[in-house]
Amino acid sequence: MSVVSRAACVLLLGLLWASVSPSPSSSPSRVRIPPHDQVARVARFIAHQCDWASMATISTHKPVVGQPFSNAFSVSDGPPGSSSGVPYMYLTRMEISVQDLEVNPAASLSMSLAQTDYCRQQGYDPQSPLCAHLILSGSVAEVNGTEAEFAKKALFSRHPEMIDWPSDHNWFFAKFNITQVWVLDYFGGVKTVTPEEYFQASPYRKHH
Amino acid sequence: MSVVSRAACVLLLGLLWASVSPSPSSSPSRVRIPPHDQVARVARFIAHQCDWASMATISTHKPVVGQPFSNAFSVSDGPPGSSSGVPYMYLTRMEISVQDLEVNPAASLSMSLAQTDYCRQQGYDPQSPLCAHLILSGSVAEVNGTEAEFAKKALFSRHPEMIDWPSDHNWFFAKFNITQVWVLDYFGGVKTVTPEEYFQASPYRKHH
Repeated sequence: MSVVSRAACVLLLGLLWASVSPSPSSSPSRVRIPPHDQVARVARFIAHQCDWASMATISTHKPVVGQPFSNAFSVSDGPPGSSSGVPYMYLTRMEISVQDLEVNPAASLSMSLAQTDYCRQQGYDPQSPLCAHLILSGSVAEVNGTEAEFAKKALFSRHPEMIDWPSDHNWFFAKFNITQVWVLDYFGGVKTVTPEEYFQASPYRKHH
Repeated sequence: MSVVSRAACVLLLGLLWASVSPSPSSSPSRVRIPPHDQVARVARFIAHQCDWASMATISTHKPVVGQPFSNAFSVSDGPPGSSSGVPYMYLTRMEISVQDLEVNPAASLSMSLAQTDYCRQQGYDPQSPLCAHLILSGSVAEVNGTEAEFAKKALFSRHPEMIDWPSDHNWFFAKFNITQVWVLDYFGGVKTVTPEEYFQASPYRKHH
């Protein structure tokens, strides 16, 4: 093989590698879900894997006052590899769901592995229980001080665009205070874990 | 370049092409969002593009009775290229959110282009208004007869796994009856369109 053709092949191999190497957020090698019987670990895994969530609130907006309302928000429970289990959010009171929360902070967050490449790669339909998803019940509250510092690190590391969001929106950091954890990750219906079990669990595989 | 090295390069080029060519469901060439000022078209586009949705209900389950509850469901408004605008679902009364709906059918569905590859490819954060999302307010109702036939075609064509779901779950077809459409697809806050405007709009680009 000539030097030129070898160089061309090396370049092609490099491009090929770059193109098949998935981004960190969608890497199949990183998406190794814990065993389904370790429910709290599965919950922590999903919470750390997903970088956005659907939040349900009780609407305060006409014509649906008092009705449920579903909306999407970026979340982070920590920088990649540093999971706290607490979903942090970067919110503004200009936002419709946040206005709901000011009247009634009760909310529910759902995150599904359908949001990652996992279910597509495994061939699991988004509604299949094997396409694991997590539902958190609780409420949303502003955080301050050192917790706000952690929230900032958690969010801005995974959502770098946030740094440049318009300052006149009066963004603040908030946490989802978890009161109940619901997990759909296998056949046989929903399973629940307590917040204590959830926070004690490790989302990562143990290395031997 | 020798025949062998040329063949190797052709093979590499082929692999490279295959690896960068996205799958049909995530093809950027198919994800061509309508202009943001054509709000109803954007809404129809998102509704047809997403094959699952987050549904908010009012929970009937302890310990969160009366609180909002968010959960993920597969949806389809028609086979690919045949958008009706109506989100159809395949449900079972064994499911927790469906049990909520039996007490109070009011619900909200949200679908975000963060569910597709669009936002990642465009570099839009999931919470950016440019990562367009759609919120539908309304209620869920079982469908029968010819509408159930369409729902079956709409769902099974995009969720082939459903055909084999366990028959003892008593699955039924349901539609989301839309009463209000909320669209977040650009700066300046949420926009609403009426169900009439939504159903009259075309989700597809006009060909000249």
